[in-house]
Amino acid sequence: MGRDKSESSVNSAGDDKIADLSVQQSGLQSEKPFIQDLVSILSQKGLEHVVISPGSRHAPLSISFFHHPSIECHVIPDERSAGYFALGIAQRTQKPVALVCTSGTALANYTSAVAEAFYQELPLIVLSADRPEEWVDQGDGQTIRQEGLLNNHIQGSYTLKQDDQQKDVKWHNQRMINDAWNNATTYPGGPVHINIPLREPLYGLVEKGSAKTKMIHVAEGVSLLSAEDASQLKEHFASSPKVMILCGLQFPDNELEERIEAISKLSNVTVLTETTSNMRKGEVVGCIDRLLMSLSEDDMQDLMPDLLITFGSHIVSKKIKHFLRSAEDMEHWHIDPAGRTLDTFQHLTRVIKASSSQTIELLASASVVESDYHAIWYGEHLRLSKLEQEVSGALGWSDLYVFREILPSLPQDSILQMGNSSVVRYIQLFDRREDIEYYGNRGTSGIDGCTSTAAGMASVTGKTVTLITGDIAFMYDINGLWNDQPNDNLKIILINNGGGNIFKIIDGPSSSAALETVFETKHRRNAEHLAKHFGLNYLTANDPTELAEGLKSLNDANQCTLLEVFTQDIANEQILKSSFREIRERKHKH
Amino acid sequence: MGRDKSESSVNSAGDDKIADLSVQQSGLQSEKPFIQDLVSILSQKGLEHVVISPGSRHAPLSISFFHHPSIECHVIPDERSAGYFALGIAQRTQKPVALVCTSGTALANYTSAVAEAFYQELPLIVLSADRPEEWVDQGDGQTIRQEGLLNNHIQGSYTLKQDDQQKDVKWHNQRMINDAWNNATTYPGGPVHINIPLREPLYGLVEKGSAKTKMIHVAEGVSLLSAEDASQLKEHFASSPKVMILCGLQFPDNELEERIEAISKLSNVTVLTETTSNMRKGEVVGCIDRLLMSLSEDDMQDLMPDLLITFGSHIVSKKIKHFLRSAEDMEHWHIDPAGRTLDTFQHLTRVIKASSSQTIELLASASVVESDYHAIWYGEHLRLSKLEQEVSGALGWSDLYVFREILPSLPQDSILQMGNSSVVRYIQLFDRREDIEYYGNRGTSGIDGCTSTAAGMASVTGKTVTLITGDIAFMYDINGLWNDQPNDNLKIILINNGGGNIFKIIDGPSSSAALETVFETKHRRNAEHLAKHFGLNYLTANDPTELAEGLKSLNDANQCTLLEVFTQDIANEQILKSSFREIRERKHKH
Repeated sequence: MGRDKSESSVNSAGDDKIADLSVQQSGLQSEKPFIQDLVSILSQKGLEHVVISPGSRHAPLSISFFHHPSIECHVIPDERSAGYFALGIAQRTQKPVALVCTSGTALANYTSAVAEAFYQELPLIVLSADRPEEWVDQGDGQTIRQEGLLNNHIQGSYTLKQDDQQKDVKWHNQRMINDAWNNATTYPGGPVHINIPLREPLYGLVEKGSAKTKMIHVAEGVSLLSAEDASQLKEHFASSPKVMILCGLQFPDNELEERIEAISKLSNVTVLTETTSNMRKGEVVGCIDRLLMSLSEDDMQDLMPDLLITFGSHIVSKKIKHFLRSAEDMEHWHIDPAGRTLDTFQHLTRVIKASSSQTIELLASASVVESDYHAIWYGEHLRLSKLEQEVSGALGWSDLYVFREILPSLPQDSILQMGNSSVVRYIQLFDRREDIEYYGNRGTSGIDGCTSTAAGMASVTGKTVTLITGDIAFMYDINGLWNDQPNDNLKIILINNGGGNIFKIIDGPSSSAALETVFETKHRRNAEHLAKHFGLNYLTANDPTELAEGLKSLNDANQCTLLEVFTQDIANEQILKSSFREIRERKHKH
Repeated sequence: MGRDKSESSVNSAGDDKIADLSVQQSGLQSEKPFIQDLVSILSQKGLEHVVISPGSRHAPLSISFFHHPSIECHVIPDERSAGYFALGIAQRTQKPVALVCTSGTALANYTSAVAEAFYQELPLIVLSADRPEEWVDQGDGQTIRQEGLLNNHIQGSYTLKQDDQQKDVKWHNQRMINDAWNNATTYPGGPVHINIPLREPLYGLVEKGSAKTKMIHVAEGVSLLSAEDASQLKEHFASSPKVMILCGLQFPDNELEERIEAISKLSNVTVLTETTSNMRKGEVVGCIDRLLMSLSEDDMQDLMPDLLITFGSHIVSKKIKHFLRSAEDMEHWHIDPAGRTLDTFQHLTRVIKASSSQTIELLASASVVESDYHAIWYGEHLRLSKLEQEVSGALGWSDLYVFREILPSLPQDSILQMGNSSVVRYIQLFDRREDIEYYGNRGTSGIDGCTSTAAGMASVTGKTVTLITGDIAFMYDINGLWNDQPNDNLKIILINNGGGNIFKIIDGPSSSAALETVFETKHRRNAEHLAKHFGLNYLTANDPTELAEGLKSLNDANQCTLLEVFTQDIANEQILKSSFREIRERKHKH
């Protein structure tokens, strides 16, 4: 008979970790052969983390995963949060993470995290328990049209068949499971959805056997450029006096980073990076907006590349998009092993269907034309970095002030999760720290799951994970705190400016009576009661002294801690603008 | 340029209502002709309520709606909550409600509420602002594949075209908007999705003009049975000694209720209702589970109908489903004006594609066969009602005790929102109150939006809306409290039994080491801090005296109030079971 996830529950934040290892290693599993096959294939493929939301239809799955010795289960009650929690684990481990939910709208709550994972190309394996398919639309509870529900943003959609006494059905199921994993993990990779109808009884267990399952392995080739293409590209690159390499969203990749370091010093090359591209080595320009904002129209024309080379996914900076889209005549090569036509700047002329690392290595070996393009860009970058430090000495209390203080305060070799757009944009105004890994959900740029993502990441790393978030994003994903996962290494800095300020940073709606309600209406709450509810250590800062103390206490704390920093809307806007103005003025005086 | 919803915000719960009427009636609207047409057609069709989540891409829509004199805008920051808030308004008004969101994953968060609306057949008009379609998958922020995202659970999917200087495009857009409304509102009705790509600039306003828009009206016929069919049905009905009429989920409908009242007294008929069928008149059996639980196997065979007639949608009682599915030889007629094949009990023999009200009226006019079927069922019902009152006098502190006390305490002519499954199942154990309207999201039986639904309903009625919810459902939809909508008439009774008890009510997983974590793990939180955060009046009850006081204070309160009732897991189970046992024993003694 059907059961309802509604009354399932979860331990409080203070409890011990849920999974009792003696249970996990008991050697039991569901009695359903096709579920045994699923768990067996996924674990042989290397699955290590499963995020389960309470329910009962998925019992054969969750019981088997819980009893599996090499799989760690994380219980997250709100499926929307669970989706992002899994995404945070996948960001960190760069390996597939499975999501398990019960039937009904549980699955629907994954939709936004799955879209984010799709654009970040992160392998989430969604395993949705379903009522037997013959019961769909027959007036039974928790039965919706689950098949295809996530189709807009997945790399593959599958439905297992229950009647696996039939040999061909068993073959079909095992093939589907292999195909799902392979699609999730081969380039470009991303989320897949396996819908799993389950007939009762659901709770039968058997001892683990030694049945063999069908494994289909993938040997993924790297596409190598032909000698002709390679020499043509290299020649064009070598003879271009103004080459810009713009790095998009990219998870840390040591090999690629070294190639970029090498090419970044060539005289005809400027490498522009964002925090989310995690390219921290070499003579790269890391604060794109700060540099572009200081330029006059004439400067801009001088700095426009004649060849733009990109790799990775989303670019955060709107200014660089506007700048490059305004080019009159520009060659643009986009490197993508999947060969997709990604024409972000409307000047795409060539898709390079090959590895970014190898392509950059190829180009870096060229003997390039004499050029001062590198010197101009990088010189400008260093100069602005110095100016910014001069100017910021006298900075008033504001978001800008706060961000300037946060960055150097972060622990050595730690991880930064940037919650929402204004956080990412502020962080990009300051020189990057080479020891920090930067993450932000910029695939869809939603605020739906910032806290959950950070919590997921914190649960699988010993490093400190600092989430910087805004008051709206924090409240939106408040259920990111509703779990009993280990999170002593999670530190949250909540910038409460009493409502959104993003419109002050990027040109926004200037005047509309409805503005304050629909776009960025004000509020007057703080997070004290919420912190108490979830058992978080709670700190506040209202001025520079409190901030300094707060940041210190945050780093010293041995438990999950929330530092709420209060700034003023109007001051934030004025100080940001005057700071930019002063940098421009000082620059032109020199 | 693109803006981000992330930093938009909302007033605190204590603030005044957001929409300033002087603004609303200013006569301004977006300068975009196709948005003017959209707002004009929807308002002419009768749209009165729009639920908007903060953002900026939707500015042309939200500004126009805000300035419209006959449309009320509700601002709800979390789109998942907004979806259910709109659903609550639609439940109450039985008219279309529009949802407006910005581009990106905002739309994805409507998925679960839209599925619920689909199965409740409630007309939600989803208006999703989108980036211009040429920018999809081009690496821009907040740009996902919005088209078709909700396709599994809607009555129609549309995309407007922006270039409406072209006459045929203008015609296309106006036709789509009319079609969407008409599909949402004609039987069976339900959610529709209009995706609206919007190019910048977004904030331009003009004075409202007097341009005419194309209106396509619908005259919806009622399908009348042929004389032959009518007489055949009537004859079969009249000659059947055991007819059960089982009423599914149904919004209040006076005409139908009167027809049911008439037919409920026929000697060969028993009418079974659930609270969610809102059929409160006549000699009907309202507590299905209580009655079925008291029966022996032999009784069951005697009470099995030879003809089952159903209308409405989902049935909550699992016991009646099991009972009817176990029939050996039964005729089942399902009345549905859309003629769908809904075979909930696996014995469907006839679909009656006609109005429920007219069909019941037709049958009620028959001269029926002599039978004691009505007397047996209804007599049993009255007897159990009396027994239950005898037994419950000595009831110990438990969920059962609490529910018995809540029902009579509810204000006269008020509305009950039943949050999750165990609430619905407990409420169904007691005789219904005729002055109360009962609602519950039983379309998909999810817990995703119970509080938001109640909040939405409370915002559009002067009646008291009492939400009874569980601790998990309450936390899941905590953002249902995150808005500044009027809610002084919203009262929340939160039954905190420290985790889920549903498995004790419906036969559940008996033993599994993983049970406590994945199915119903315990927690030890209360809602005090959450109530404080949202500015709610907060009361608690730990025993009968406190409960009596709490229920009184709840009804006397002039503001949104939360009464948290603490019960004990183990006691709940024992008391429920012993209460059933005692009723059975007393019955058999008599």
